[in-house]
Amino acid sequence: MSNPTLLILPGDGIGPEVMTEVRRIIDWFGDKRGLKFDVAEDLVGGAAYDAHGTPLTDKTMAHAQSVDAVLLGAVGGPKYDDLDFSVKPERGLLRLRKEMDLYANLRPAQCFDALADFSSLKRDIVAGLDIMIVRELTSGIYFGEPRGIQADNEGGRVGVNTQRYTTNEIRRVARSAFELARRRSNRLCSMEKANVMESGILWREEVQWVHDNEYPDVELTHMYADAGAMQLVRAPKQFDVIVTDNLFGDLLSDAAAMLTGSLGMLPSASLGAPAENGRPKALYEPVHGSAPDIAGQGKANPCACILSFAMALRYSFDQGTEADRLEAAVESVLRDGVRTADLMQAGDRDPASTTQVGDAVLKAL
Amino acid sequence: MSNPTLLILPGDGIGPEVMTEVRRIIDWFGDKRGLKFDVAEDLVGGAAYDAHGTPLTDKTMAHAQSVDAVLLGAVGGPKYDDLDFSVKPERGLLRLRKEMDLYANLRPAQCFDALADFSSLKRDIVAGLDIMIVRELTSGIYFGEPRGIQADNEGGRVGVNTQRYTTNEIRRVARSAFELARRRSNRLCSMEKANVMESGILWREEVQWVHDNEYPDVELTHMYADAGAMQLVRAPKQFDVIVTDNLFGDLLSDAAAMLTGSLGMLPSASLGAPAENGRPKALYEPVHGSAPDIAGQGKANPCACILSFAMALRYSFDQGTEADRLEAAVESVLRDGVRTADLMQAGDRDPASTTQVGDAVLKAL
Ligand SMILES: CC(C)[C@H](C(=O)O)[C@@H](O)C(=O)O
Ligand SMILES: CC(C)[C@H](C(=O)O)[C@@H](O)C(=O)O
Repeated sequence: MSNPTLLILPGDGIGPEVMTEVRRIIDWFGDKRGLKFDVAEDLVGGAAYDAHGTPLTDKTMAHAQSVDAVLLGAVGGPKYDDLDFSVKPERGLLRLRKEMDLYANLRPAQCFDALADFSSLKRDIVAGLDIMIVRELTSGIYFGEPRGIQADNEGGRVGVNTQRYTTNEIRRVARSAFELARRRSNRLCSMEKANVMESGILWREEVQWVHDNEYPDVELTHMYADAGAMQLVRAPKQFDVIVTDNLFGDLLSDAAAMLTGSLGMLPSASLGAPAENGRPKALYEPVHGSAPDIAGQGKANPCACILSFAMALRYSFDQGTEADRLEAAVESVLRDGVRTADLMQAGDRDPASTTQVGDAVLKAL
Repeated sequence: MSNPTLLILPGDGIGPEVMTEVRRIIDWFGDKRGLKFDVAEDLVGGAAYDAHGTPLTDKTMAHAQSVDAVLLGAVGGPKYDDLDFSVKPERGLLRLRKEMDLYANLRPAQCFDALADFSSLKRDIVAGLDIMIVRELTSGIYFGEPRGIQADNEGGRVGVNTQRYTTNEIRRVARSAFELARRRSNRLCSMEKANVMESGILWREEVQWVHDNEYPDVELTHMYADAGAMQLVRAPKQFDVIVTDNLFGDLLSDAAAMLTGSLGMLPSASLGAPAENGRPKALYEPVHGSAPDIAGQGKANPCACILSFAMALRYSFDQGTEADRLEAAVESVLRDGVRTADLMQAGDRDPASTTQVGDAVLKAL
C-alpha cells in the first residue's frame, strides 16, 4: 500500500520556520514509528503571490484536493496590505477552505496547566479549561453573494456582503459538533443571533432538528452570540463543545483562544465530509497568525503547528495513540521549561529558539 | 420655557423595578437642582406585546420621536421566545433605534476600582479600565435587505441577511467616534474584517477618509475584529475609543462590558445626528438585559439604569456637572458597600435591595 500523502504549505511570516520543525517531527514518525508519509511542499498566501501573482495557483489547489491532508503555516503580513482584495494572501486560504469544502473547523481552546499563569484571566477561571469550538467554515458572510463595493445613489459608495445559510449547510456542521460532543462530555451549545437575524433563526431551528432527530442523547442549549462572548469571558468552563457560524466562530474562537493565554499552543483542524476510507478532506493549521514582527528570527513557537500535525494524526490517519504521544511530548517540554519567548515571564531563564523547542520535542518523543 | 421631556419605557423583566429608582433620582434633580423634566411612561417589548399585540405601538413610536430623550429599561424574556420574529420584544427596541435614526451607540466599559475584583480577569489587567465603544446602530446586517427564510432548491430552507453600509453611514458614526476621541485621549481604533468582507474594506477606507480630511490630529489605527476580540481579552487598556459596525459592536461591547466584571453598572447612550438645539435624538439604556430569573424580587442592581440617566444629563441636556454629581454619588455608594447581590462576594454582609441602593444614591446626592 502506498504511503499517506501530505501537502505542506508553510505560507508567510513565521509559517516556514515553524513548519521546519513539523517536518522533523513527521520524519521521526516515519523513522521510529513506521508511519511514513509522502510529503510535498508548495506556496500559499503572500509567498505564492510573490512567486506567481496569485495567493494560490490552480496547480496547488489541485494538489491540495488530491492529498490525504494539508498542513498550513500562516498567511498574510503588512507587505500585502495594499494588494487588491482578490489577490490578498487570505484569499488563498479561503479558496482552499471553500473548494475542499472544509465545512467543520475544529478549534480547541485548551489551557495547559503549566501555562495557566499566562492568561489575563484569573487562574481558577481558566485552569483546566478545555473547550472545542466548531466553526462553520465554507459559507455564511465569508462567501455569500451578492458582495462587493459599488457607487450608491448619494454620490458615495455602498459595501455589501451576504450571510446565507441553507438547511444542509447547518445540519452537516451540527452533526460534526454532536459527534464531538458524544466523544467528550455530551454537551453542545449553539450560538447565533436568532433575536435579530433570520439566518440565526434558521440556524437555531436546524441545529435543534438534528438534535431531536439524530442526537437526542446530547444535551443541547442555545445562546445568543453576544451573550456567548460575555460568558466565554466570565466563566468559560461552563462550555464543552460550541457550534457556531463562520463569522461568529471567527471572533468567538479567537476570544476563546486568548483566554488560554497561550496562542502559540493552539492547533486547528478543518474537515470536510466523513469519507469512506476514514479520511475526510482536511487542512490543519495553527490558530496564530503569521507574526511578521518576529518572522525569520528563530523566536516563533512551533508548538501550535506541531499540535496541528497531532490533530492530523488523530482526525485524518486514525492514529489516536500516536497523537496522544506527540501531545504528551509537547506538554512535557513545556513542563521542563523549554519555551520560546512568548511563554516566558520576567526573571525566567533565556527563551529557547524555535529549533531548540523542536529538538526538545524530538527528544521527549 | 417649557421643561425638557422624557419618555420612560421600563420594558420587561427587571426593567420596571430599576426604572422606579431612576424616577426617584429624576424627581430629586427637579426638587433639589431645579432641573425639572416632564416625564411620561409607556410600554415596550414583551410588556407592549401583552397589552397591544406589538412590541411597540405607532403611538409610542411617535411619542418617542417627540421627546428630548427616551430612557429604556430592558426588553425580552423566555415567555416571548416562541413569538413570531416580527413581534419579538427585540423588534420594539430595534424599531426605536432605526426610526429615531440613533446611529451612534456609546458603550463605556469602565472598571470601578471598588469592583475590580469581580472581574474574571486579573486585577492589574482591568483596574482603571476606561474604554468607550462606539457601535453603529441603525444599519449593517441588523437591517439590510434582502433578509428572511425561504425554501431552497434542495428541499430545505435558506436563511439570508445582508450586511450593507454606505459612505454616509460609515462617515457619520466615525465622526461621532473621532469627536469622543478628541475629548478623551485622542486615540481611535476602528475594527472590521477588511481581509474577508468588502463592506469591511469600505468601512476601513471611509473611516480613514474622515480621519485624513477632518480629524488628522486624532491617532487612528485599524484592527481586524477577531484580533480585536483577542486584544480586548489580552490587554484591554491598550484601547481608548473603539468604533465598529452594528454586529461586531454587539459582540465586542458585550465582551468589553464583561471584562469590567460588573455588568450591573454599565450604561449606554444611543444618539442621532447632532441637533441645532444641542439635543440629538437620544435613547439611554443599561447594557444588562431583562434578567427574567431575578425579576420582581427586588434584587436587581439599579446602577446601570441610574448611570444611563447620568449619560442623558451629559449628552442630551448639557448638564455635565450634574452628571458628574450623579456618577460620584453612585461610586460613593459602591465604596460604602451598599450593593445588590450581583456585587457581593461570599462572606460579605447581606446584599442591599434595589430600593436600598436607590435610597443610598439619593442620600449620597
Ligand atoms: C486569515 C483569515 C482569513 C481567517 C478568517 O477570518 O477566517 C483567520 O482569522 C482565521 O480565523 O482562520
Ligand atoms: C436585545 C438585542 C436586540 C440587542 C442587540 O442585539 O443589539 C442587545 O443585545 C444590545 O446589544 O443592545
